[in-house]
Amino acid sequence: MSRLVMKFGGTSVADLFRIQNAARHVKREVEAGHQVAVVVSAMSGKTNELVGWCREASRLHDTREYDSIVASGEQVTAGLLSLALQKLGVDARSWLGWQIPILTDGAHGAARIVDINGDVLIERLEKGQVAVVAGFQGIGPDGRISTLGRGGSDTSAVAIAAAIGADRCDIYTDVDGVYTTDPRIVPGATRLDRVSFEEMLEMASLGAKVLQVRSVELAMVHGVRVFVRSSFADPDSELLVKSNTPPGTLICDEDEIVEQQVVTGIAYSRDEAQISLRDVADQPGIAASVFGPLADANINVDMIVQNVSEDGSTTDITFTVPSADYERSLEVLEAERDVIRYKNVQGSTDVVKVSVIGMGMRSHAGVAGGAFRAMADKGINIRAITTSEIKISILIDAAYTELAVRTLHSLYDLDCKQDS
Amino acid sequence: MSRLVMKFGGTSVADLFRIQNAARHVKREVEAGHQVAVVVSAMSGKTNELVGWCREASRLHDTREYDSIVASGEQVTAGLLSLALQKLGVDARSWLGWQIPILTDGAHGAARIVDINGDVLIERLEKGQVAVVAGFQGIGPDGRISTLGRGGSDTSAVAIAAAIGADRCDIYTDVDGVYTTDPRIVPGATRLDRVSFEEMLEMASLGAKVLQVRSVELAMVHGVRVFVRSSFADPDSELLVKSNTPPGTLICDEDEIVEQQVVTGIAYSRDEAQISLRDVADQPGIAASVFGPLADANINVDMIVQNVSEDGSTTDITFTVPSADYERSLEVLEAERDVIRYKNVQGSTDVVKVSVIGMGMRSHAGVAGGAFRAMADKGINIRAITTSEIKISILIDAAYTELAVRTLHSLYDLDCKQDS
Repeated sequence: MSRLVMKFGGTSVADLFRIQNAARHVKREVEAGHQVAVVVSAMSGKTNELVGWCREASRLHDTREYDSIVASGEQVTAGLLSLALQKLGVDARSWLGWQIPILTDGAHGAARIVDINGDVLIERLEKGQVAVVAGFQGIGPDGRISTLGRGGSDTSAVAIAAAIGADRCDIYTDVDGVYTTDPRIVPGATRLDRVSFEEMLEMASLGAKVLQVRSVELAMVHGVRVFVRSSFADPDSELLVKSNTPPGTLICDEDEIVEQQVVTGIAYSRDEAQISLRDVADQPGIAASVFGPLADANINVDMIVQNVSEDGSTTDITFTVPSADYERSLEVLEAERDVIRYKNVQGSTDVVKVSVIGMGMRSHAGVAGGAFRAMADKGINIRAITTSEIKISILIDAAYTELAVRTLHSLYDLDCKQDS
Repeated sequence: MSRLVMKFGGTSVADLFRIQNAARHVKREVEAGHQVAVVVSAMSGKTNELVGWCREASRLHDTREYDSIVASGEQVTAGLLSLALQKLGVDARSWLGWQIPILTDGAHGAARIVDINGDVLIERLEKGQVAVVAGFQGIGPDGRISTLGRGGSDTSAVAIAAAIGADRCDIYTDVDGVYTTDPRIVPGATRLDRVSFEEMLEMASLGAKVLQVRSVELAMVHGVRVFVRSSFADPDSELLVKSNTPPGTLICDEDEIVEQQVVTGIAYSRDEAQISLRDVADQPGIAASVFGPLADANINVDMIVQNVSEDGSTTDITFTVPSADYERSLEVLEAERDVIRYKNVQGSTDVVKVSVIGMGMRSHAGVAGGAFRAMADKGINIRAITTSEIKISILIDAAYTELAVRTLHSLYDLDCKQDS
C-alpha cells in the first residue's frame, strides 16, 4: 500500500462526464489499496470566465478580490468530484485552502505556499477517506483567500504530496507523458519513461507546457516523484488495473534513471523578443546601466550576448525579453538613452529560442559543436547562444523553428525507432 | 448619518452591467454619509446551474458538498461588486460567511443562523469601508460552509442588519415595493408605503413573492426595518439623491403606521392541493390518526375543515397540502386506510388559496362576511375557509383565481385612485 496524490487539470474535469471519468481513476487506485489525496483545477474555461469578469469590473483590480472570485472555480470542482466519488461508493470529502489550511505568503494573485499541515489530511486518509483538495488556492496571513498564479494547481499537488509524505504525485492531463519534443512538429517524437528533475526544470522553463516550472522546482526540493499520465485513458482498462508500469513519464531523481541519455529532449519557445543596442560605449558599468532599469521595470532579461569591441571604444549588446514585454523594454531603453549612450536600438519579435537539454551533456564534449554545425548545414543563422551545464539554447529566426527542431531531434538520435 | 444594509438579489446582479448599477446605488448612499454593508445573491441563473451540476453528479448528494459548491455563486458576486465599487472610488471589501464568521447550526442545505459577531464589520464601517457580504452562506460547527436554503440572502441581509444595529435594511429587487395584490392580475394594484411585520409575514406565507418568510420573521423578532425598493431605478436620479422618501415599501412595526387600513392586501397561492376524506368514523383521536402519519412524512398540512356529523357516526375531513406533496399524501393515506377507516378519498390540485390580509381586521367586524357574500355574488364556490386575527383564506377552484382576487381587491377599496 502506498500514499498517492492524483492531480486533475482543467481539461480532465471539463464537464460532469470528465469529472465522473476522473472519479473512476481515483476509485481504481483506492481499490488497489492506496491512500489517495486528489487535487483539482477549475473546469476548463471557468478560470478564464472569472478572470474576464474581474477585468470587466475593473481593469486595475484589487488582487484580494480577484483571488476570492477566481478560487471559486476549484471550489466547485472539488465538491463535484467528491459527489461523483460518493456516487461510486468511495468515501470522499472536499477541502478548501482555508480549511486545511494551506498557508501562503499572502502575495495575492501569485502567492507562494509557506506551510501545509498535513496532519488533518493524513488522519482522514488513514481512515480510508479520499481527500479532494481545491488546487491553486491557500489562505494568507490576512485571513483571505490567495491564489498561486496560473497553473498553480500543479504546485498545490506537489506541495500536498510533500506535506502528507506521498510516495508519488500523479499529474493526470490531456497528454500521456513528456515527449522528446513537440509531437506536432516531430511526429516521430517519443515519450520519455523517466526524466530527471533538472532536465524537466529546463524543459518547463524553455517552453515545454506539460508542467509548471514552480511545481518542478518544488518537487526537486522535496524529492517528490511526479508521474505525468493521461486522464483520457479508460480508467478500468486492464493496462491500468493490472500493470505496475502504466504509460506515462516519471520525473524523479537522476539516481533512479539507469541509462542516462546524452540529450533528453528538444524544447522551443516562441515567447521571445530580441533587442540589440548598437555602438554602446564600452566602459565599466555599462551592463548595469542597461539591465538595472529593465529589472526595475520587472522585465525578465534572458539571453545576453556582449562582444568585446575591436578597438575598445564601442560594443554591441544583444539580449532577449518575453515578447509581451518587448514594447515596454524599448520605452525603458529610450528613457535611459542619455545614461546608456548607445547609437541605435534594433529589435525583433520574430525570433524563437530552441534548446537542447540533457543531463549527459555534462560528461560528453562536442554536443554544442554538433548543434551549431547542423544549423549551419541547413542555412539557419544563429542570432545568440547561451549554455548551461545541461542545456544549449540558440536564438534563430522564427521561420526556421520546425526545421531547427527536426534537425536537432534527428541529430541526437531521438526519433522513434520502428520495430524491425 | 445612519447605518444601512443594502441587499441585491439575483436579477439585480445578473451581469457586469447590473453589478455596476448596484455599485452606483451603493455609492449614492455612501456619499449621503451613510455607513453601508451590502449583501449579495448569486448572479441570476448561477445557483440553478450549480444545483444542476450537483444533481447530475449524484441525485442523492451529500449536502455538505452541495453547500460548498453552491455558495461559490455568492462568493463571485461579492468579489465583483467590491471591484465595481473600488472602480467608482468607493473603499470596499468582500466578506465570506466563514470570514466574519456567520455561525449557523450546520444543517447543511437549510441552515439557520445562530450568531453573527458584528464587531469586525462595524470596525470597518466606522472607518468608511463598505462591507460586501456574500449572502446565503455561513459556517457550521463542523467548520464547513453551510447555506441557508433558497432565497436565504434576504435572511442573511436581515441578520447582518440586526448584528450591526443597522437603521434600515434595503432590499433592492426587480419590483419597486409591495403591492396590494399581484399587478399582473389587477392592473390597478397600488404600492403600499408601509406594511406591518405581521401583515408582511402573512403575505409572504400566503404567496406574495417579494420577501422570504424567514427573513420577515427575523426582521420582526429583531425589529429590523426593511425597505423593499427597485434596483432598476436610475441610481443617480434626483428622486433618489435628494428625496428623503424614495419609492418603495417600508416593512416596520405597526406603531410606525399612522393610518392603518382595514385590509392591506390580497394574496393568492396556486401551490395548494385539496384532499377530502369521506365518511370517516367520528370518534376521538381520528384527527391524530390522519395528520400524525402526514407529519411523520414531513408533509405540511395547511387548511383543515372538519364538520360535526349529523348523526354522530361519520364525518368528512378536508385539508390542503403543498401541491408538490399531493401524490405522496395520497400514498400515506392509502397505507393508513385500515387505521383511519374512511370510505373514500377525493382530491384536487386544481385549487387556489386566496387570502385577505390586514391588521385592521382585528378591530373591524364584518370583513369576513363581506368577502363570503362577494364570492357568492360572483358564483364562486368556497371549498374551505380558515381565518386568523389578521387574515381570511378561502380555497376555491383555480379557474376563478383572477375573478376572486379582482373582486376582493375592489371590495376593500384597494384599487388605484385616479387623480381627479
